Amino acid sequence: MAEIRTIDIKKAVLSENTGLADALRGRLNESGTFLLDVMSSPGAGKTTLLLETIRRLREAGIGTAVIEGDIESTVDAEKMAAAGVKAVQLHTGGACHLDASMVEAALNELDLSAYDMVVVENVGNLVCPAEFDTGAHRRVMLLSVPEGHDKAFKYPLMFTVVDCLVVTKTDYLPGSDFDLETLRAEARRLNPTLTVFEVSARTGDGMDAWCAWVAAAVRGGE
Amino acid sequence: MAEIRTIDIKKAVLSENTGLADALRGRLNESGTFLLDVMSSPGAGKTTLLLETIRRLREAGIGTAVIEGDIESTVDAEKMAAAGVKAVQLHTGGACHLDASMVEAALNELDLSAYDMVVVENVGNLVCPAEFDTGAHRRVMLLSVPEGHDKAFKYPLMFTVVDCLVVTKTDYLPGSDFDLETLRAEARRLNPTLTVFEVSARTGDGMDAWCAWVAAAVRGGE
Repeated sequence: MAEIRTIDIKKAVLSENTGLADALRGRLNESGTFLLDVMSSPGAGKTTLLLETIRRLREAGIGTAVIEGDIESTVDAEKMAAAGVKAVQLHTGGACHLDASMVEAALNELDLSAYDMVVVENVGNLVCPAEFDTGAHRRVMLLSVPEGHDKAFKYPLMFTVVDCLVVTKTDYLPGSDFDLETLRAEARRLNPTLTVFEVSARTGDGMDAWCAWVAAAVRGGE
Repeated sequence: MAEIRTIDIKKAVLSENTGLADALRGRLNESGTFLLDVMSSPGAGKTTLLLETIRRLREAGIGTAVIEGDIESTVDAEKMAAAGVKAVQLHTGGACHLDASMVEAALNELDLSAYDMVVVENVGNLVCPAEFDTGAHRRVMLLSVPEGHDKAFKYPLMFTVVDCLVVTKTDYLPGSDFDLETLRAEARRLNPTLTVFEVSARTGDGMDAWCAWVAAAVRGGE
């Protein structure tokens, strides 16, 4: 009987991606550029948080460029450009996540020596981006208050792979049934070393602590 | 030179899924059961809207069961059960969408003759579920006000494949920069026959019109 050879496509794809991501991190370390991957559901407030974060870090002497990952459109890249932030737009052509090869293509469009940090704004999705290492030094997820506190039960992998959880739109907390303690407990059960921030980009609440974490990561993280 | 044979895996998967979905619709037509597929981002309010919709339709003589699609957890199925709604939980094991074969497996757990409608609550994701026909007679997407009105630009396929867009959490509209007219214009450009409702399950605003649409689809949609 002939031998049957089985190819696990997903495992092969992920393994190739991880190798490429490691190589990308090595290249970024050489140029002294910190790469931050930011993930969330659609509409959790990635662009708004990043605009305010980049503005504050610029005042602290940290220069940032962004890579905007979208299926289509240049809505977010235009917002970045309008704020004077260098942005490279990646269109995934339908794919629901970025991978290391896409991020590498975007980095090739940047003069890395000009930036202390590059932020990847991943495709809005709590599932697939968690599986793909983009070469980032740190991975962050946002969860907005209107989405509800039960997301750690429903999308556990994302909470497991990130270094930091930022609860956004905390100005929606009054009158909502969002239970921060339940979220914190479940997130920490999944990921005991997770750092958690609560911010409102609208009111500025919590922005100091979050920006200090990013600045410390940029300065000491490579 | 030997012939090179290329297999487009994605096309083959989608084609097989569509065949299965058509067969499933045929089976549902025979039993007189209407299948509704409900899709959205995580946290757009699917479960809350469905609980209130099912309660109202029950008063109108329409009996409903639900299929809960999740990567993990039984959070939503428990809410359905607590409200006296028959629920079948599907765990995708990491997959970011439901397909026709998964829905068929769930339907096999139900006595279809006992229900006028089965609602599929798809995995929270604006990308991949749009590509997979689950065998439903109608497809609906929810977009919640806190997510922002720009989602039709960023996730156009979802807006193109659905019959109906339900803008949820309209109680968040006052004081927000959500632009309903921009959303409507872009959604209708993508999908000229799209039906659009604006609802707040919390206040009840808009629920009558939405439920009337579902009831009409159930009664005449097969």
